[in-house]
Amino acid sequence: MQIVLIAGDGIGPEVTAATQEVIAATGVKIDWIDAPAGLHSAEQFGDPLPERTLDLIRQYRVALKGPCTTPVGKGFRSINVKLRQSLELFASVRPVQSLPHLKTPFEQVNLIVVRENTEGLYAGLEHQVVPGVIESLRVITRTAAERIVRYAFELARQYGRRMVTFCHKADVMRLSDGLFLQCAREVADDYPFIDFEEKPIDNVCLELVTDPKHYDVLVMENLFGDVISDLCAGLVGGLGVVPGANLGSKYAIFEAVHGSAPDIAGKGLANPIACIRSGAMLLEHIGRRDAAARIEHAVVETLRAGVGLTRDLGGDGNTRTITDAIISHLPTG
Amino acid sequence: MQIVLIAGDGIGPEVTAATQEVIAATGVKIDWIDAPAGLHSAEQFGDPLPERTLDLIRQYRVALKGPCTTPVGKGFRSINVKLRQSLELFASVRPVQSLPHLKTPFEQVNLIVVRENTEGLYAGLEHQVVPGVIESLRVITRTAAERIVRYAFELARQYGRRMVTFCHKADVMRLSDGLFLQCAREVADDYPFIDFEEKPIDNVCLELVTDPKHYDVLVMENLFGDVISDLCAGLVGGLGVVPGANLGSKYAIFEAVHGSAPDIAGKGLANPIACIRSGAMLLEHIGRRDAAARIEHAVVETLRAGVGLTRDLGGDGNTRTITDAIISHLPTG
Ligand SMILES: CC(C)[C@H](C(=O)O)[C@@H](O)C(=O)O
Ligand SMILES: CC(C)[C@H](C(=O)O)[C@@H](O)C(=O)O
Repeated sequence: MQIVLIAGDGIGPEVTAATQEVIAATGVKIDWIDAPAGLHSAEQFGDPLPERTLDLIRQYRVALKGPCTTPVGKGFRSINVKLRQSLELFASVRPVQSLPHLKTPFEQVNLIVVRENTEGLYAGLEHQVVPGVIESLRVITRTAAERIVRYAFELARQYGRRMVTFCHKADVMRLSDGLFLQCAREVADDYPFIDFEEKPIDNVCLELVTDPKHYDVLVMENLFGDVISDLCAGLVGGLGVVPGANLGSKYAIFEAVHGSAPDIAGKGLANPIACIRSGAMLLEHIGRRDAAARIEHAVVETLRAGVGLTRDLGGDGNTRTITDAIISHLPTG
Repeated sequence: MQIVLIAGDGIGPEVTAATQEVIAATGVKIDWIDAPAGLHSAEQFGDPLPERTLDLIRQYRVALKGPCTTPVGKGFRSINVKLRQSLELFASVRPVQSLPHLKTPFEQVNLIVVRENTEGLYAGLEHQVVPGVIESLRVITRTAAERIVRYAFELARQYGRRMVTFCHKADVMRLSDGLFLQCAREVADDYPFIDFEEKPIDNVCLELVTDPKHYDVLVMENLFGDVISDLCAGLVGGLGVVPGANLGSKYAIFEAVHGSAPDIAGKGLANPIACIRSGAMLLEHIGRRDAAARIEHAVVETLRAGVGLTRDLGGDGNTRTITDAIISHLPTG
């Protein structure tokens, strides 16, 4: 099994290496194909996202990715956005669950954020009308709207989830979110066995900080999804522990969504949990559900035991000790 | 002193009446000029926001407003949005502070959300490109961007606040939020005695649910502001206790931003705190800072005492008992 590995910048090489180790320890054999992206790549090849990297993903279909920094001020578009658009990774999926050891004000959070990944204001269409007046286009299409809502319902069905909440601002964007809402209702009709709820995005934000337990699967357009994904990560301990996936009909990229933390890069201090859990999602995607579940279990038990944790998790360990702890908690397969 | 009163729908007449009582109890004499808006007005005058109401506000400059429901499905634009745009109420201001008695996961929250109120996606410019493809325009102008950031800094100065955070998504909307960010930086340069911080909106959402104490004054465009305002209200107990103001260079409307709660309307059960605190903001606006401070004090002490509170606040009282409690806690002027 060959899988592309984009180690990325900063702590990227450390957290992806830890993930490779944990995956190897489950017994799943993967032949990792290195591919460059990020600051590193821009310096070495003059391109933060070389065509070669895209081609490798096209060839092998699946990638694990560490944080990649987009060089600023040189007209490069965000690497993440470019990856999603070039490979039509139309769905971003972020499962968010309360974890042991991480003291947050919220308990029993257990939701999945499904974000449309290709349109909205991320279409990148902007122009200056006259100096001092800019228009950005927020593009919503029936095709993409139906596709993402259907994706959310399929996910709900597959994982036995009970409710899908569609988040919108249709009272203000009557045409665009009106269309999206109409598509959502139509798709929801195909799933009478899953509850459907539609809510303005501002209400959702308020409820997420007062009663996050209410939510199950949430689906929404791109920029709303950007904001809600990070808000939800905050509810359970932040980007250091939450995995992410970007999925299309042909390709899939699994990635920790945290930054490259240049201040601690190379020091062996990085927390690899977000990347390791993204690796578990990757295993699930390629049909190794058992290995995926074992990794998830090991991460949860490692946090519960609270030994060997990295500093950001309140421990005095490092990448090595937490990786060893996770491996030692892997149930035998 | 004449002030326009838009009682609005549902519990609107109850919460505005309570506010009038509390203001009267401070000794500030106001001659309230009734003006219609909302569902009620649509039924009676065929218009949810009659021109007469706008004219009254233009004449008297200041209004207190209860929740108004925009009739759905009849092509009416949101009353709130129309008010803001017709009267150029370019700034929405929402002070958000932790309150006694209200158990929330967050303590010592003390921030002010300043939202640009006239542009962004609220410009309402949308069109169908071809069937199934909609474009909504997000409009950002230098004029409005500078105006709102300057407003935020002036507010910070006036209230002795130490930091202004500008929230944006300039890495995705390079032109529009690029312009906004540039304006923010330029204005910030005029206030070297107030800290300035610029942050992506997704980061802000994450930090607001993990470390809201970090924030002081936040300023941002319209839709981001919509979402952040409600999120922040959620941090301290919800829309039932948080006041709001919509301000322009000529006119000002003070309003509770919660809904009209038709289920409890007319039963004397509504919690008037959000409206009463909006009334306090109104008094401050017209230069009666002392009366405003006394109302704020009385609300806080009423919550601390915990007697006479409405059901949504965990009490067994009603609009009457909580209004009496607030009046009884007014320090002598
Ligand atoms: C880096 C940025 C463009 C990106 C986004 O806004 O999508 C990031 O916030 C994310 O969520 O992956
Ligand atoms: C009713 C709606 C159009 C309005 C808005 O989005 O501005 C409301 O949410 C608000 O914040 O006042």
